[in-house]
Amino acid sequence: MLPFSRVTVIGLGLIGSSIARAVRQHMPTVRLTLHDADPAVRERVRDLDLGDDVPDTAGASVIDADLVMLCVPVGAMGAVAAAIADDLPADAIVSDVGSAKTAVLAALREALPNATVIPGHPVAGTENSGPDAGFASLFTGRFCILTPPDGAPEAAVVRLRAFWEAFGSQVEIMDAKHHDLVLAVTSHVPHLIAYTIVGTASDLEEVTQSEVIKYSAGGFRDFTRIAASDPTMWRDVFLNNREAVLEILQRLTEDLTMLQRAIRWGDGDALFNLFTRTRAVRRSIVEQGQDDPAPDFGRQH
Amino acid sequence: MLPFSRVTVIGLGLIGSSIARAVRQHMPTVRLTLHDADPAVRERVRDLDLGDDVPDTAGASVIDADLVMLCVPVGAMGAVAAAIADDLPADAIVSDVGSAKTAVLAALREALPNATVIPGHPVAGTENSGPDAGFASLFTGRFCILTPPDGAPEAAVVRLRAFWEAFGSQVEIMDAKHHDLVLAVTSHVPHLIAYTIVGTASDLEEVTQSEVIKYSAGGFRDFTRIAASDPTMWRDVFLNNREAVLEILQRLTEDLTMLQRAIRWGDGDALFNLFTRTRAVRRSIVEQGQDDPAPDFGRQH
Repeated sequence: MLPFSRVTVIGLGLIGSSIARAVRQHMPTVRLTLHDADPAVRERVRDLDLGDDVPDTAGASVIDADLVMLCVPVGAMGAVAAAIADDLPADAIVSDVGSAKTAVLAALREALPNATVIPGHPVAGTENSGPDAGFASLFTGRFCILTPPDGAPEAAVVRLRAFWEAFGSQVEIMDAKHHDLVLAVTSHVPHLIAYTIVGTASDLEEVTQSEVIKYSAGGFRDFTRIAASDPTMWRDVFLNNREAVLEILQRLTEDLTMLQRAIRWGDGDALFNLFTRTRAVRRSIVEQGQDDPAPDFGRQH
Repeated sequence: MLPFSRVTVIGLGLIGSSIARAVRQHMPTVRLTLHDADPAVRERVRDLDLGDDVPDTAGASVIDADLVMLCVPVGAMGAVAAAIADDLPADAIVSDVGSAKTAVLAALREALPNATVIPGHPVAGTENSGPDAGFASLFTGRFCILTPPDGAPEAAVVRLRAFWEAFGSQVEIMDAKHHDLVLAVTSHVPHLIAYTIVGTASDLEEVTQSEVIKYSAGGFRDFTRIAASDPTMWRDVFLNNREAVLEILQRLTEDLTMLQRAIRWGDGDALFNLFTRTRAVRRSIVEQGQDDPAPDFGRQH
């Protein structure tokens, strides 16, 4: 049995358009309504035939939905929720895919005080953006975290879990605050660091941009891939998960200072011990199917 | 015409064994002699049939060489050079593949005061190590930097350039000190940061190791790949390119502090501007063929 029969996706970027494609593939009988604030994106979504209907307003897109999935940048969640408030059916479940859950939950509850809100976060993505970048298998084998607030109806959580599991995701339930700390470590701070290092490299006087690009295969290019992600999405993540990001950043800075000191004083053992330890973490990630064992530095897939 | 006819490779890890394979493929008539200090590696190299001969001592491996390529960790270069000093033919060219050139040049010149030393650095690699990890096409389309010292015979540089170009590499000539700064930016500091962040993530009390691994697809797993590189090699790089690494690290720390402040004070414009700028760097790297445009976050090659 399908967990939902009339699904609305608002925001047709990488994640929203991947959800639309995955619904089409795994739940072909679901009536799928799509909306994006950008008329050019709506036009493209119609051309790509990603859904049954692409209304011009957010309100019109939710009129008969039983699941509304908000796939807009974290900072836009509140405004989108307000825009659908008048048209949202009383029994619809509202969820989202944002990477910061405490702030999103607060924004959605404020705009939709009487709705059933179950925030979610599929931990999956690529460095590309827009409706053309999505694909149906993006969530297969990846984790999706749901952060139901206290008092959320259990039946709603069960249905949302079934929705994600139909895409091949593994669903985990977590407190919103804990989610935000975990993701600060596994996603937000890594992105911030990647953005920083690419910025630093572009600003050097003694090393030209052309040199940075030419010799990027030594490690740098991997950071540029991460630092090519959508700027609006990431600005909003940092502004909306400030506390956890600053906490992890502080820890990172301490550890970096320790290594800086080890380099300055020639403490090879401290370096070697860390570099050995980090190798084991990599091994676990590959063993648990969260990355490909193929040596990707050589690329040539 | 072949630039060399009797090539010796000492150190049969990822790079050394890739050079051996590339010589076999592109210069099949070259007599190829291989040596590694580790008897188990020599045994494996014999089993893989990577060369014509695998002597048990470094000295025996260079007796009739016209090119000796040292592919050991940067910190071991001086000792290996001393070990071959007595047996090195007077007209042999000695080169290496280390990622820090000022220190290597000094070590080689001290151990081999009368030899023709032309240090080099192929900017290519994977996160794997050992003789089984190498492959002949590792250097194709990648840059190889040569750092001939003042007074190096031009004919030797020409021959070494031809050697690398036969593998499909683009060769650039650079001053050793400038090389070390460029590589600090494009390779050494990115690796140090990756090692640090993986270490920080493993040490948190509030987030478990299992959570870090599960949700690593949000960006973290890309850092673990970089932080899975060979610990000895990387320890030696940092100890032998201290000045440049510390200089770049200082710049990075300043930029990171600026971003930390932007997050704390909610300065979305500063974040957005940087995130847009870094996207352009990525575009150039892909345009210039130094990375694959395929969205690798989704992996699924």
